[in-house]
Amino acid sequence: MRSPIESYLRHLHTELSRVTDGVPFQGIPAMAAADPQNFAICLATVDGFVYEVGDADTEFSIQSISKPFTYGLALEDLGLDAVDGKVDVEPSGDAFNEISLAADGRPANAMINAGAITATSLIKGSGGRDRFARILAKYSDFAGRQLHVSEQVYRSELKTGHRNRALAHLLRSFGIIETDPEAPVEDYFRQCSVLVNARDLALMAATLANGGTHPITGKQALGIEAVQRVLSVMTTCGMYDDAGAWTSAVGMPAKSGVGGGLIAVLPGQVGLAVYSPPLDSHGTSVRGIAASQRMAEDMELHFVRAARMGKSAIRDTYDITDSPSGVRRNEEAVDVLVSQGHRARVVELNGDLLFAGAESMVRAVSTLPDDVELVILDVRRVDEVSQVALRMLCDLRDGLAADRRRLALIEVDGTIADAVFGEDAGEEVPLFSTRNDAVEWAEEWIIARHGDPGLVPDSVAVPDFPALAPLDPEEIAALEEAMEERTIEDGEIIRRVGQKFGGIYLILSGKVATSSIHNGQRYRHATLGAGMTFGEIALGATAGQTIRVTAQGRVRLKVLSSEAIHRLEGERPELALDFWKAVARDAYTRVEQNLKEAAVRVRD
Amino acid sequence: MRSPIESYLRHLHTELSRVTDGVPFQGIPAMAAADPQNFAICLATVDGFVYEVGDADTEFSIQSISKPFTYGLALEDLGLDAVDGKVDVEPSGDAFNEISLAADGRPANAMINAGAITATSLIKGSGGRDRFARILAKYSDFAGRQLHVSEQVYRSELKTGHRNRALAHLLRSFGIIETDPEAPVEDYFRQCSVLVNARDLALMAATLANGGTHPITGKQALGIEAVQRVLSVMTTCGMYDDAGAWTSAVGMPAKSGVGGGLIAVLPGQVGLAVYSPPLDSHGTSVRGIAASQRMAEDMELHFVRAARMGKSAIRDTYDITDSPSGVRRNEEAVDVLVSQGHRARVVELNGDLLFAGAESMVRAVSTLPDDVELVILDVRRVDEVSQVALRMLCDLRDGLAADRRRLALIEVDGTIADAVFGEDAGEEVPLFSTRNDAVEWAEEWIIARHGDPGLVPDSVAVPDFPALAPLDPEEIAALEEAMEERTIEDGEIIRRVGQKFGGIYLILSGKVATSSIHNGQRYRHATLGAGMTFGEIALGATAGQTIRVTAQGRVRLKVLSSEAIHRLEGERPELALDFWKAVARDAYTRVEQNLKEAAVRVRD
Repeated sequence: MRSPIESYLRHLHTELSRVTDGVPFQGIPAMAAADPQNFAICLATVDGFVYEVGDADTEFSIQSISKPFTYGLALEDLGLDAVDGKVDVEPSGDAFNEISLAADGRPANAMINAGAITATSLIKGSGGRDRFARILAKYSDFAGRQLHVSEQVYRSELKTGHRNRALAHLLRSFGIIETDPEAPVEDYFRQCSVLVNARDLALMAATLANGGTHPITGKQALGIEAVQRVLSVMTTCGMYDDAGAWTSAVGMPAKSGVGGGLIAVLPGQVGLAVYSPPLDSHGTSVRGIAASQRMAEDMELHFVRAARMGKSAIRDTYDITDSPSGVRRNEEAVDVLVSQGHRARVVELNGDLLFAGAESMVRAVSTLPDDVELVILDVRRVDEVSQVALRMLCDLRDGLAADRRRLALIEVDGTIADAVFGEDAGEEVPLFSTRNDAVEWAEEWIIARHGDPGLVPDSVAVPDFPALAPLDPEEIAALEEAMEERTIEDGEIIRRVGQKFGGIYLILSGKVATSSIHNGQRYRHATLGAGMTFGEIALGATAGQTIRVTAQGRVRLKVLSSEAIHRLEGERPELALDFWKAVARDAYTRVEQNLKEAAVRVRD
Repeated sequence: MRSPIESYLRHLHTELSRVTDGVPFQGIPAMAAADPQNFAICLATVDGFVYEVGDADTEFSIQSISKPFTYGLALEDLGLDAVDGKVDVEPSGDAFNEISLAADGRPANAMINAGAITATSLIKGSGGRDRFARILAKYSDFAGRQLHVSEQVYRSELKTGHRNRALAHLLRSFGIIETDPEAPVEDYFRQCSVLVNARDLALMAATLANGGTHPITGKQALGIEAVQRVLSVMTTCGMYDDAGAWTSAVGMPAKSGVGGGLIAVLPGQVGLAVYSPPLDSHGTSVRGIAASQRMAEDMELHFVRAARMGKSAIRDTYDITDSPSGVRRNEEAVDVLVSQGHRARVVELNGDLLFAGAESMVRAVSTLPDDVELVILDVRRVDEVSQVALRMLCDLRDGLAADRRRLALIEVDGTIADAVFGEDAGEEVPLFSTRNDAVEWAEEWIIARHGDPGLVPDSVAVPDFPALAPLDPEEIAALEEAMEERTIEDGEIIRRVGQKFGGIYLILSGKVATSSIHNGQRYRHATLGAGMTFGEIALGATAGQTIRVTAQGRVRLKVLSSEAIHRLEGERPELALDFWKAVARDAYTRVEQNLKEAAVRVRD
C-alpha cells in the first residue's frame, strides 16, 4: 500500500507544478539555464527515512544554504564567543546581498553574505586539510555522502562576484577578516558551488533536527551547542526580510539558496527540502515557499503545533502492598508488611523526561509523605531522557539520602542508572530489571528495618510448604519419604526448556532464577525462594518445560520425581488423589495471581 | 522533601538578588517608586502546577506584556487576514516606542506601541460589554482570576502618554485606526494599567504554552490558530531589538513590560514569569533577562533542546499466531490459522502521534506485505494524538479498504476510534478493548475467510473438551453422567465474586464474559466460548471466586458440581484421581499461557 504521506506529497507536488511564477537565477549562465520545471520535495525523518517526490536526484548548487553549515563549523572550531566577536546574531531586515555592517564592522548575522564570508574566513586548515577541504568534509558529513564542487558554477562565481569581493575587502578594512580577503572569498565561492540534490538537503536538515547527528550514518556532524545557535539564527535571520511572515506561516527555522533549494528544520522530528529553480523577488524559490507553507499547515509542522503537550510522566504510583512480590512469608513478616509496607512506594514513569516530564517526576517524589523511606522509580517505559532530568535524578537521590531515605530503580538495561549514578553505585541505588525483583527486595528491606531479626527465613521444611497445606501430616510425611534431596551450585541449570515433566521441585533454601526465550531474546521472570515450588508447568505445556530454571547461589531442593508420583498412584491412590487435588488448587492460586497482576498492569 | 526544582529556583533567586543594575521605569511616579528589590520568579506547568519564589503576590502594572493578549483577542474577533490588513508581522528593529509604520501606514507588528494601539482599536464591544470590559475579561481568562486596573497608574498614563496619543492620531491619519483615536488610546492606557502579579503572568504564559487553554480552570482563553500567530510574532518581535540574541540564548517566545514583568513560553511545557522593576536601556527587566537566560540553559528550555526526539511510535508488531487468543479450536481451524494467521497483524503503538509518531505508524502499516489483510492497531499506550495523525488514520483505513483489506483498533475507551471514524463505524473499523478480544475476532475472521464453512464451531460436546483429553472415553462418560445441564439467558450472572468453589462449568454453546474489580473499577477479562471451562479459579483462591462470569447471549452449560466431585471421590477414587490430574494439567496450561503473554508484553 502506498503511504498516505507519500500520496500527500505526490498530490502537493502535482498541484504546485502548476505554479509558474518566478525565474531561475540569472546571474550565472549555468544557473540561468536550469529547467524551471525541475521540482522535488523531500522529507527526512530523524530516524532516517526519506520521502522523495519529483527530481530528488537532480543536482544543483547549494548557494546560500551553505551558510548555516559553515557557520556551524566556525562555531565548533572557535566557540560561540569568538565567533560572536566577528558576526552578530541580529536580523538585518536587509536583502541577502546588502552591505549591512554595525559601527564596529561586524555583519548583522551569518545568514547574509557579509556574515557568511566572515564565517568562512574563520575556518582554518587542520590535520593536513585546508580550509575548503574541511568545509566540504563537513557538508558531506551533514549529507551522509561525499559532495563535490561544480567547477563550472565556481568559475562563474569567480568572474561575477564583484559585490562579494567588495564585501570581503570592506570586512578586511574593519579587521573583521584578519588575512588577505582573496582566499576566504574564493572559498566562499567554492562553498556556494557545492552540488547537492534535494535528498541531500533533506538529510542535512534532518541532521540539524536530530541534534547534529546524521540520521542514517549516525555520525555526529555538529555538537548540540552549535546546532542550537545555528537553528536560532536561522529562525530570526534565515529568510531575509520575511522572517516574521515565515515564522507566522511556517514556524520552522529555514534557509534558501538562489540555486532553487530551500531547507526547513523541525527540531526533533524532520528535515524538509524543496528544489525548484524559479525565484521570487527576494531570491527565494517560489514553489519552495509554497510547499513549505502547505506542509507546515497540513502536517502541523509549525513549532507551536508540533510541541508535545507535556503530560505528566507519572503512569502510576502505589505502595508495595498493592503489588506484592508473591514471595510467601511467615505471619509475623506479613504483619510487618501490612503495617509498614506503605513506607516503600513504586512510582511508574512513562513518556519523555524532558523538562515537563522531569518536573512531574520530581514533584511526585518530593510530595510523597515523610514516612515513605524507599522510593522505587520504574523507568522501563521512559522514552527520552534530557540532561536536566538526569541532574534532577541526582538531586532526588541526594535529597532522599539526606533524610535517611533511599532510591531504587527498575530498568532493564541500566542505561539511566549508569548515566546518573555511575556503574559502581549499585549499593547506593539498587537496580532491578523487574518490578517483582524490586518489590521482593523492598519487602525484605522493610521487614529487616521494621521487624524482629531473622524474619526473612533462610530455609523452609517440607511440612511448611504452602502448596502442601491441604494435605494432612501423615500424607506429607509419606510424600517427603518419596522425595530425593539435591544440592545445586550457583549458576547450574536445574530445568532446561523442552524437558518433559520431571516432577515437582521444592526449594528448601536458596534462590532460583527463571527465564524464557521469545524472538531470540531472553526474558527474566520471577526469582523463586525457599518455600516455593517449580517444575509443574511442564505438566500442562505441550512442548514440555518452557522456562529455564537456574540456581542463584547454592540451592537445596527436594524433588518428587514423576516416577515417584507414578509409584504413589499405584500404591496409595487416595494419597495420590489428595496430592493432585493440592497441585490443582495451587495451580489455580497462581492463575488467579497472574490475572490480578494483568488487570492492574494492562488496565483493560 | 523540598523539590529540586524549587531548590534550584530559590538558589537562582538568591544569586540574582545580588544583581543591582538598572532602574525602575521613571515615566510615571507610581512606577518610579517601585521597590527595586522586589523580585519574583514563577514557573507554571501546562498541568497547572506553579512554582513561586520571592514576591510572587506583589502586584504591578502589566504594561507591554498586555500586547500579545490584546493581539490574540483581535485575531480571534476578526480573523488573521483582517488583522494582517492593519498590522504587519515583521520585526521593526526599533525600540518599543519608535514610530515605525510602513508606506501604507501599517505598523510593523503588534508588539510595538503603534501596532498594539491598532490592535486595541480593532476590539469592539459585544454582548453588552464595551471594548475594555472584553479586554479585561480576556486577560482574566488567561490569568484564571478576575484582574483589575490600577486607577493611579491609568491616570498617570493619561497625563503623560503624549507619544502614544501622537501615534494614535498618526494611525488615524493613515486610516489604520478608523474611528476617533481618543477612545482606543485611552483603552490602551487602561490595558497597560491592569495589575498582575508574577503568578498571574506565569499562568498567562502557561495558557499560551497549553495551546490557549488555562491549565487550572480548563477554560479556553484563545484558539490554537491565534495562539500560533501570537507566539510566532513574540518569537520574532517580542524582545524589541534583541530578537536575535534572545532567540540564541533563550529560544522561547517572550514579552517584557516596563512594569518590571517578563514572560516566556515553551510551547507544550511551561510558562515562565519574572518580576523585577529595574530596567536596562531597552526597557526590559535586568533580572528578568538574566533569570530567563539561566533557566533556559540550566533546564534546557530552549526550543531546540526542548524538542522531543521523534522516536518511532511502533512498540511492537507481530502476527496473531505469535499471540494467539487461547480459544481452543479444532484441528482444521488450527491448520487454517497456522497457514493463514500471518495475514492478520497487530501493530502496537506508544508515545505521541505528533508528526514523527504518526509518520512512523503510517510507514509501518504501508510497508506491511500485501498478503496482510487485517491490521489491528493497538493504541492503548498512545499519549497525545495530533489532528494530522487522525487524518492519517482515515487515509490508512481508506487505503486498506481500497485493497479489500481491513483496519481494527484496540482501545479501552474508544476516544480515537470515535474521533477518526465516528461512533457508527463499528462495523467498518471494529473496536476491541483487549488484545485477546481483537485476536479472537481476527482468528475467526481469518478462519471464515480462508477455511471451510462451519469451522468456527457453534457448540462442543463434552467428550471434545480439551480439558478432559487425558481421560479415557469411559471416564468421560461417567463424568458427563454426574453433570447437570443448564441454560442461561443473556446478561445473567453465572458466578459472582466471593462465591466458594462450586464445581467446574463446561461451555457447550454461547459465550460468557469475565470481569474483575480493582480499586473500584471493573476490568474486562477474556470472553470464553464453546469448549472452554470456568469456575476452577475459586479452587485456589482464598477469597473464593475472584472473577464475575456473565452470559453474553444465551449460554448452554454442563456443570460438574463440587458435590458431584465429592461423591465421585468416594465412589470412584481412581476416576477422581485422573480427573484431578487432568484439572492440574489444564491449570498449568493456563499458567504457561499467562507467563508467555507477560513475557512478550512486559519485556522484562
